[in-house]
Order: sequence, then structure tokens, then C-alpha cells
Amino acid sequence: MNFASDNSSAAHPSVMEAVAAANRDYAMPYGKDPIMDRVRARLREVFEAPQAAVYLVATGTAANALALASYCQPFQAVFCHADAHINVDECGAPEFYTTGSKLVLTQGRDAKMTPEGLDAAIRTTGGAVHSVQPGIVSLTNSTENGTVYSAEETRALCDVAKSHGLPVHLDGARFANAVVATGASPAELSRKAGVDVVSFGGTKNGCLGVEAVVFFDPAKAWEFELRRKRGGHLFSKHRYLSAQMEAYLADDLWLDLARAANDAGRTLSDGISQAGGRLLHPTDANAVFAAFPRAAHRRLQDAGAAYYLWPGGQSLEGPDDELLSARMVCSWSTAPEETARFLELLHG
Amino acid sequence: MNFASDNSSAAHPSVMEAVAAANRDYAMPYGKDPIMDRVRARLREVFEAPQAAVYLVATGTAANALALASYCQPFQAVFCHADAHINVDECGAPEFYTTGSKLVLTQGRDAKMTPEGLDAAIRTTGGAVHSVQPGIVSLTNSTENGTVYSAEETRALCDVAKSHGLPVHLDGARFANAVVATGASPAELSRKAGVDVVSFGGTKNGCLGVEAVVFFDPAKAWEFELRRKRGGHLFSKHRYLSAQMEAYLADDLWLDLARAANDAGRTLSDGISQAGGRLLHPTDANAVFAAFPRAAHRRLQDAGAAYYLWPGGQSLEGPDDELLSARMVCSWSTAPEETARFLELLHG
Amino acid sequence: MNFASDNSSAAHPSVMEAVAAANRDYAMPYGKDPIMDRVRARLREVFEAPQAAVYLVATGTAANALALASYCQPFQAVFCHADAHINVDECGAPEFYTTGSKLVLTQGRDAKMTPEGLDAAIRTTGGAVHSVQPGIVSLTNSTENGTVYSAEETRALCDVAKSHGLPVHLDGARFANAVVATGASPAELSRKAGVDVVSFGGTKNGCLGVEAVVFFDPAKAWEFELRRKRGGHLFSKHRYLSAQMEAYLADDLWLDLARAANDAGRTLSDGISQAGGRLLHPTDANAVFAAFPRAAHRRLQDAGAAYYLWPGGQSLEGPDDELLSARMVCSWSTAPEETARFLELLHG
Amino acid sequence: MNFASDNSSAAHPSVMEAVAAANRDYAMPYGKDPIMDRVRARLREVFEAPQAAVYLVATGTAANALALASYCQPFQAVFCHADAHINVDECGAPEFYTTGSKLVLTQGRDAKMTPEGLDAAIRTTGGAVHSVQPGIVSLTNSTENGTVYSAEETRALCDVAKSHGLPVHLDGARFANAVVATGASPAELSRKAGVDVVSFGGTKNGCLGVEAVVFFDPAKAWEFELRRKRGGHLFSKHRYLSAQMEAYLADDLWLDLARAANDAGRTLSDGISQAGGRLLHPTDANAVFAAFPRAAHRRLQDAGAAYYLWPGGQSLEGPDDELLSARMVCSWSTAPEETARFLELLHG
Repeated sequence: MNFASDNSSAAHPSVMEAVAAANRDYAMPYGKDPIMDRVRARLREVFEAPQAAVYLVATGTAANALALASYCQPFQAVFCHADAHINVDECGAPEFYTTGSKLVLTQGRDAKMTPEGLDAAIRTTGGAVHSVQPGIVSLTNSTENGTVYSAEETRALCDVAKSHGLPVHLDGARFANAVVATGASPAELSRKAGVDVVSFGGTKNGCLGVEAVVFFDPAKAWEFELRRKRGGHLFSKHRYLSAQMEAYLADDLWLDLARAANDAGRTLSDGISQAGGRLLHPTDANAVFAAFPRAAHRRLQDAGAAYYLWPGGQSLEGPDDELLSARMVCSWSTAPEETARFLELLHG
Repeated sequence: MNFASDNSSAAHPSVMEAVAAANRDYAMPYGKDPIMDRVRARLREVFEAPQAAVYLVATGTAANALALASYCQPFQAVFCHADAHINVDECGAPEFYTTGSKLVLTQGRDAKMTPEGLDAAIRTTGGAVHSVQPGIVSLTNSTENGTVYSAEETRALCDVAKSHGLPVHLDGARFANAVVATGASPAELSRKAGVDVVSFGGTKNGCLGVEAVVFFDPAKAWEFELRRKRGGHLFSKHRYLSAQMEAYLADDLWLDLARAANDAGRTLSDGISQAGGRLLHPTDANAVFAAFPRAAHRRLQDAGAAYYLWPGGQSLEGPDDELLSARMVCSWSTAPEETARFLELLHG
Repeated sequence: MNFASDNSSAAHPSVMEAVAAANRDYAMPYGKDPIMDRVRARLREVFEAPQAAVYLVATGTAANALALASYCQPFQAVFCHADAHINVDECGAPEFYTTGSKLVLTQGRDAKMTPEGLDAAIRTTGGAVHSVQPGIVSLTNSTENGTVYSAEETRALCDVAKSHGLPVHLDGARFANAVVATGASPAELSRKAGVDVVSFGGTKNGCLGVEAVVFFDPAKAWEFELRRKRGGHLFSKHRYLSAQMEAYLADDLWLDLARAANDAGRTLSDGISQAGGRLLHPTDANAVFAAFPRAAHRRLQDAGAAYYLWPGGQSLEGPDDELLSARMVCSWSTAPEETARFLELLHG
Repeated sequence: MNFASDNSSAAHPSVMEAVAAANRDYAMPYGKDPIMDRVRARLREVFEAPQAAVYLVATGTAANALALASYCQPFQAVFCHADAHINVDECGAPEFYTTGSKLVLTQGRDAKMTPEGLDAAIRTTGGAVHSVQPGIVSLTNSTENGTVYSAEETRALCDVAKSHGLPVHLDGARFANAVVATGASPAELSRKAGVDVVSFGGTKNGCLGVEAVVFFDPAKAWEFELRRKRGGHLFSKHRYLSAQMEAYLADDLWLDLARAANDAGRTLSDGISQAGGRLLHPTDANAVFAAFPRAAHRRLQDAGAAYYLWPGGQSLEGPDDELLSARMVCSWSTAPEETARFLELLHG
């Protein structure tokens, strides 16, 4: 009964088998392994982008920070939601990789930026030499609150960015969940909507540790390669990254795994609602944010359920019927028994 | 017949099995997995350092740059050999992670620093505010030229550093090879000689991609954790790093693998000498630097032998008997047949 | 009739005479001129801080950014008001000098932080390795809105900082105006209230271009000197900075000049109120923020009055009686005729 | 008798008068003062570059570091002589402003780079992703050893840079001395020879503290302005920088001052030679490097002569007739009596 995070899950057996299968013979290092050629071709297909430059790194923070640094100068700003992972959960990695860009924060319900809010933030940044200048927009899909942007919403945000001449980065650590949730194609949710570079996540959705960075404009390729190396993110035995990604993409495994996670999220969310819990955000994907009585939390945690009271600072000590809010994240490996047991305990 | 680099090799089966075995159930992310507790304990044993702070990252460049950044301020200098990996092969990662430290280069035969050269470099750096100040000494064992520092040589360099109040970093991407070559214990080659922090390599010697950073002074722990996260080098599914390192250390597998690589290097080196080749550096460990006739190079490369003409820029076009220099690196997986075939082709 | 900024003013004649008087003979460069010895002693007196480390630079941005960098690590946060000069008017200089710290913004009326707001910002920053950690608090007195913190208000903010173990920086580009406005002593408004380092402004208040950085803890001295040099802010012909500051402090000229500026601000503010204008912030010091009809703005600007519509983006085109907001800054050199003429035109 | 450095001198009276004359009325801040318009026009004339972007800062270190940062990416290298000011006397400012570029050092007699040495350094840098890539060439005229590059020598170095597609920076802290020494025009010594950006010094040659940065390609203008602000080098009361530079350029005062300094250098150099001293470098400009007996040094220093034993570490204690080497720098203000007295004491 582990809903702490999708990164508590193991890797999918097919991914692990691919890694083991790659473990033979010599292979060219540093991304020149033949598996990577296939991965590159496959991701170009996925995004319907025959010219895309495609790279692999091992962590989502690296993918995001390197992608941003490829577009954003130190004297420029990254526009993102205040709750974005790049702002609150990467210990300043974007500032580090850009060597000092400023994250300009926008608000918006359910961790989603609005076109109006984004436009206002851009308009009030820059101009005179005294201020940092607009650099790039970064959006996250699915979001930190488990919500998703539709293709139309994505396009609306990109349109604002483009109207100011700005590129757009998509933090897709949970992009698979967004694709499944919206029914849009990967291209519709990114390139065709106006996104320039995607952090395409694998780790949270069934891999050991691999994320792709996909630049739709290949002009960024060489600079990215240098920044990746300089950041210590170029793997010598790169084949083990390639093998994960190849298996992840094969036969749309990545979508199957995200569908399983989203379905588990839906089941959990519906069950909590039916039990009288209050949903704090729409459950668009695999993360459920809900408030329910302290007594239920006690029962769950006594029984070993792992999840986070969210935000932190809430206590299990106190009146039984007071509502405490929590985050429960499902993953590809969430078993029906886990969800069922959780709901059973919730009911008491 | 692949002597291009030890990172062209696959991972040892035991290491891969450990990774596969870790692929079950949920596990705490970000280094809180139980395997990491065992790895920490084991590395403290290896270095006879019960207080050491121990961390894992996936690349040697990350290990080096993060270790240096923990000790070296932006307005300080790193003293290293001009041929050091941190100077020539990391695309400026140390400058990036320290946010602008200067690498002050020393010379010395066979990629080895001398106490006199190091002392002179430190003495002529700093003092007045116009110059960067001495920050840290970084040495590499085994070196970029396949040579090793004995425990005594290591201590002599550390003594110079200490006489100037400087900490010492050891780039041990091939530390196992140095331990085997010298017969000294890991502690004698590092902590007991005066080293403060070690990049302890696993990748080149039978792992998929894992390096430990071992701080003998645990006071650096929290800052390192923040820098690692900020650099995008904290793995969420950390168990797969832990599992590699655990298997690597178990039953001294790491030393067995290095011994095999060093033995292959010795065989190759002796064979080249006997064939009239000229060794460019002593073959202390697993890398052989030698010059032999162009005709032999042609035969080898026609037969598919992989290795680098070293330095670059030499051509296979030209007189048959002209000597071309080359680097051949053996690994744990170098087969006797490979070495034998190489020497056979060399003889012609 | 120039109310654009106090930095549009000339230098006070006494300051210029001191610069001219310093222009003879040879002098030791880089801050070793004898005038600097006197400046150091005088600023220690001013702040009643016999151990303080005292340095001069030429711009306020340099003073602020270097002071912050002396205390704040790249993986830490600076807490400041959203309207602070360091956030909106320095093109990311704090991020540059700290090599990537994050400015965490608090709100508060009239550009003033509140103890509660500051405490909440600090409490919700840091802890786990995923977030930047609290680093330093920076407050500005007088503020960007022309308001001031009393000694008691300063102390209350410093107490919050200290309760979290954080140092405090004071951006005192207009510190003189705050001292005059509050009647508190320089020490009461800084060191005795808990401030650790002050950017002590001269430029806006009658100098050509000089700011002191005063560290109450001399342990920061050497690092600051290196950072100042590295930033290109160590003057070789330093005597011309020293001479300005010496004249500025002599006979409390600095307070006389600030008093004149504040008095002019008061006159202007009162006159605007009496004319039916609406004050947007209390006029505690030398800057007036007020809204009055567009017709009055047209009359003023036609007559050559210089000041800024604030915020930008408002237009002189439109209905006569619509209120437009503006910022008018007085300086030491604001003449009574200028203020009178402004008010005359305002009345129409 | 002060030969310690040309920055020990005062400012020329004409420069100081111009600063005083600028001290009236209000003026637009941040480089929008009308004097700056004239300075820009005049420097374009001086360099015969009608499109040049021209900026002022207060220190040579700022000029150099900002100029380099405008051209050199963090993952690139600056090629310079090992003795260059940017390498040894700026506490890592180039590394700071470029956020971590690597200075790749070349050797060469008398602090002068050779085309062959430069070409070799560039050829052996970059290529693969593992190494930093060539970024910019920086040369200094006159050099740290008091020598000068002719227009032809400058062109030869620029040709090497251009053959690798690299821009060229000229550290002209003492450019006036080079112009006078070579008889070449400013344009011939820079733009026409292939230089892209010049740090044009004023401070050492009669100003209080001002250096121009001249970009022959105006495309760099906006980025430079942002970097200058971000570095804290944009002066609010900019008129005082402009006034210095205007007076410095008026009626070729800058060349007259450099001529006086070079002439004094020549007189001193000739006198030392005639007295049996040994010149260590050709005296092309205003700095003399010579070795003469310790007894003479004692006489000089007892009489109050200021200059540096060069390199440091030499002692006045020891045999009378042992030669100690020294650096003596003349300036625009060096009086014939000073030179004569120095030589008189040297003779004993």
C-alpha cells in the first residue's frame, strides 16, 4: 500500500530485461551505442518530428535544468507556476544550470498557469536594462497537483509565449500520464501546440532512471551536448540508458503503464469521494489530493499505508473528525488490492 | 578486440544480477533505500573510516566536480596535473560546479605530479587579492597515463598540500587498479596518506554506472547532498545505484576485476615490448601507451582492433615503418584471446 | 524641476572639492590610500562598531550583490520584499554574485516586510534536500516606496531572522533618509537591531558614485576582498572613492543632505495632498507616490517636469480627470523653487 | 620617485576639471547623459568605426571580464598568454563573468603570444564533447612585460584566431602606450588587424577610473548592457565617467600622456643599461624590467624609491653585488627629476 510517490515503484520487468539484454559485448560509449540510434528514431516518430535532437539523461532534474539552460541566458527569466517542480523541488537546479536566471512565478488553480497570468508576468518583466529579460516559459504536464493541460490549453499558453517571442519548455516527468488523460497525441500535447523542448519522463513510469530531452529545433544539439557533459550527465556506458528507453517505448508500453497508473488514481479518487472525502484538485492523472478525517489517516498509517500529508506540518494528533489533506500517488505497479485496501481502511 | 576504453565493456554479471534483484517491491527513494545503508557501512570498512560520509552518483565527472565544489570556493584554485581528467576530459565540469574556480596546472612525467612541482604551483598562487587563492589539490590514481602513485608518493603530495593548509581530492575512477597495482590498502592509498575526499570509481571496472564519493570528514555531508541534488545527480530510484555498488564491493569483486584488467594490461605491454614496440609510459595498471610501426596499426585496425591513436591527429597514411603512438586500455572483461590476437597481429 | 530620481542630481560641492583635493601626488592603490584609513575609522564611529570591516565600491548594485554573496550560498535563498531593488532593479545581480541563489519574495504594504510574512516565508523554505535552504534576509531602508522601518520594526524583522539562525543584510542605498526620518541612530537602525551587513549609500545623496559595505563581523573581510576584486569592483585609484566618502561623512553632511531631501519630499507630499492628490504610500522620506488627474500631468510634463508615471504603461492620452499614479523623488539638491513650481502646475 | 605602478599616479588636471565641470544641474543617469553621446562619437572616430558600440566602466578588470563574457560561453576557452592580466591579476574575474570558461594558456617571450603557439593551443582544444571548445583569443597591448605588438604582429595573431573562427579581444589597459610606441593608428592596432572588442584604458594613463569597451560589431550591444548592469558596473551618475573620457580623448591628450610615460620609460631604461643594469625585456613602452645589484636597490629604497622587486620573493638581505630584478613603471606624471634621481642613486 505505497502511495508515497510513483518513484517508490520498481521498474517494469520489460525494462529491466532490456537492460540485462544490453549487458553483453563491447559497446561504443557516450551515446554512440546502436540502441540509441533506434531510440532517437522512435522518439522522432512519437513526436512526429523527424528533425528532433534527442538525448538521454538519468534524472528529471537534469533533463529540466539542461533544457532550460539551452534556451535561457543568465540575465533572463524562466516563467513558471509557483508550484512547479523546477521551482520547489530541484534545490535551485535551474538557477545552477542557467548560472543565475530568475524564476518568475505565476499563480493559477490546481498548479496550472493561465494565459492571462502568464501574459501579465511576461509583460511586467524586462524592458529596461535594470530588470532581467523574458527568457523562456516552462509548463508541467501532468502538473504537481495531478491535473493536466489539454492540447488546447497547452496551445493557449504557447501562443502567449510566442506572442512575446519566447520558447516553451515542457516538464514532462509525467508526460505519459497527460497523454493518456487527454487522449491527445504526444505531438498535439507538445510540438504542434508550440512547445520547443520536452523533458520526457521515464523514471516515474516504469524505468530505473532515464529521461529524454527532445529538442524540436536541432540547432540546440551541440550546445546541449556540451552542457550535458559539463554537468556530468553524459553516461559512458550509455547503453543502459538507451535500453531502458527502448523498452519503455516499445509497443507503447509507456502508455500502458501510464494508463494503469491513471486508472488506479481514478479508482482511488472515486472511492475517496464516495467515502465522503473532499478532493482538493481534480484527479486528472495518477495523483490524488484529498482531505479526509484524521481518524481515517490514523487507521491507514497504522496499517502501513505510505503517502504524504500535504502540505507538511499537519499532525496525526488531534480531533478524530478534523480533515487532514494528503497526496496519494499511484504508479504503473499499483495493485488493485492496494487501492481496495486503502479504501477499506478509509471507510473504517 | 576492444581496447578503446574500459568503459566500452559491459557490466559484470554479478552487478547486473544485483540490479535485477533490487527490482521488486517499493523502496524509499533518494538514497534512503536499505541497500544504501549496507553500502555505506561497507565503504567505511573498505576505507577504515567509521565516520565517513558516503554518497553515490552515476558518473565520474559528477563525482569529481561535486567533490571539488564541496571544498573549493569560486575564488580559489584547484591544483592538478595538466593531463588530469578534470582538466582535459570533463568539458569544464569542475569550473561549472565550483562556479568558476581556476585549475592551476602542474607538469610531471607520466601524468604524475611531483611534490616539488606541486609546491611551486601553490607557492606562486595567491597571496595578494589580485590572484585566486589556493583551494584544493586533486590527484588521480591510477593516472591518465596508466601509471600509479604508491602510498608513499601519495603521502608526499598530501604532505605538500597540508603544509599549505589545503585539502586533497583523489580522482579514483580507476582506484581499484591502483590498489591492485600497489598492493597498498585502500586506506593507505587515501585517508591514511592524507586524502580528504575520494571519487571511488565503479563504472569503468564492471558496473553499469556508479561512483561513490567518500568524505572522510562528515562535516561536508549536508552541503554535498544539496549540491548533488542541485546538480541533478540525486537519483529517485536510488536503489539501482546502491545495488551495483553493493555487488561491486561484495567479496572484493572490485579488486578481482581490477586485477584481471591489470594482468591483461601487463600481458599486452610485455608482448608489445617483446615485439619491439616502445612503451611511452610504464604500464602500472590496465592502460598501455606504446609506439609501434604504422604497418602494424594497419593490420590491427583492418582486423577490427579498437583502440585510439594517442594523441589524435596521427594518420594511418604514410610510411610503413614510421612509429605511431597509441593507447590500449584493458578492462575486467578483456579476454586472453583478445590480447593474444592483438599481439599476433602486431607481429604481423 | 527634476524629480525623476535622486540619482539625477549632481554631487554636493564639498564632495567634489574633496575629490579634486585628493588629486595630487602618488597614492597607494587598491584601498591602501591614507584617506581610506580615516573613512574606515569614521564609519566605525558612525555605526559604533569598532571592529567593523569597511569597504567601498562605486555602485549600490555592487554593494548589495557582494554583501549578499558573502553570506548566501548558491543553494540557499535570500528573503526579501517582492518590490526590493535587489529583486526588480538589479538585472539579477544577486543571482549572479551568489552564483544562483534564489530570491524568495514576501509581500507587505508599502514595500515593507512584516515579521509574520517573513517568518512564513522562511518556514516554508528548505528542510528537505529538494529545496533551497534559508540563507539570508535582506531589507531595504528607506524602502522602494519611500517608507521607512523604525528601529523597532527593524529589530522585529531581525529577530525573526535570528530565530531561524539567519544573518540580515540592509540595503541602505537611502539609509541616510531613513536615519533622518526615524531619528534613530545609524547603529540603532542596523547593528543594534540585529543587522549583520549594511550597504551604506552615498551616490543618491550627494556623491559622484560611492557606497560603503560595512560588515559588523570582520570575519567576512578577506572573502569580501576577493569577491570584490573578482567582480571588478576594486578600484586601483581608490583614493577618489575614499575622498568622496570622507567628505560625505564630515560634519554629518550626509545627514544634512538627507534632511534636505526628506524636507522637500514632505513639502511636495503635503502640497499634493492639499491639491486633492491621493498619496499611494506614506511619505516617510524623500520619495512621493501619488495619483492625480491626467490634466495635471499634462501641464507638468509640458512645463518640463521630470518624474515617472508609476507603474509604467499609463498614458497621457485619455480623459482629463482620470487619476494617473506617479513617483516623484526629491534629492539633496531639490530647490524650493522646483517644489513650488511643481505644486503650482499641479493646481493648474 | 614612484615607479610602483602607473595607477599610483593622480589624474591629469584636465580630466579632473572636466569631472568638476560636469558637476552641475541634473543629468540623465545610466549612460544617457549628453556627454556620453559625444564620447561615443569620438571613440568611433578614434577607431574609424562608425557602427561601434561603446560603453564605459570604471575598472580594467570589469572591462576585460565583461568583454570576454559577451563572446565566450561557459563551455568554451579563452586563449591568452600565461602572464596576461586576465590570468594572473584579476582573481578569476573572467571565470566569474563567463560563469566558468577555462583560460587556456600559451607561452611566449616577453609576455607576447606567438602565432604558432596560439595556433597549437587552439588546435589541441575542443573537438570532442569531453573538452571545452575554443571561444575567444585575448591579447594585451602593451603587454605585462612592457613590450608591444606591432600592427603586423597583431594581425598575425588575429589571422590565426580567424582561421579557427574565433573572435579576438584586446586588453588595452595600456593601449595608448602601444599606439605611441608603434606609431600605428588605433584602428590599425585593433579593428583593421582583426580585433573584435577592445578594453580601452583610461585609468592608468591620467584618468580617475574609467575604461571604455568598444565593440566593433554592434550586435553585442544589448547583451553587454545587461551584463554590465548585472555585474553592478552601470553607473547611475554616469556623467562622471563620461566627463573623464571626454577630456582624456580631447586634443589627443591620451596620446600625449602616453608619450610622456613612454619617454620616461625610455630614459630610465637607457640609463639603467648605461649603468650596467641588465634589461630583462625590451622597453617598448612605459614599463622597465631590469636587474641590477642589490646594493643599488638598497640605496634606492633607502632614498624612498617605490617600485617592485619582480618577481616577489627576492630579498634586500644578501651580497651587495648579486643582481635582483625589478619592475619600474613610468606614468604620464613621472617627472624628469624622478628619473634622474633614480639613475643617480642607481649609479651610487
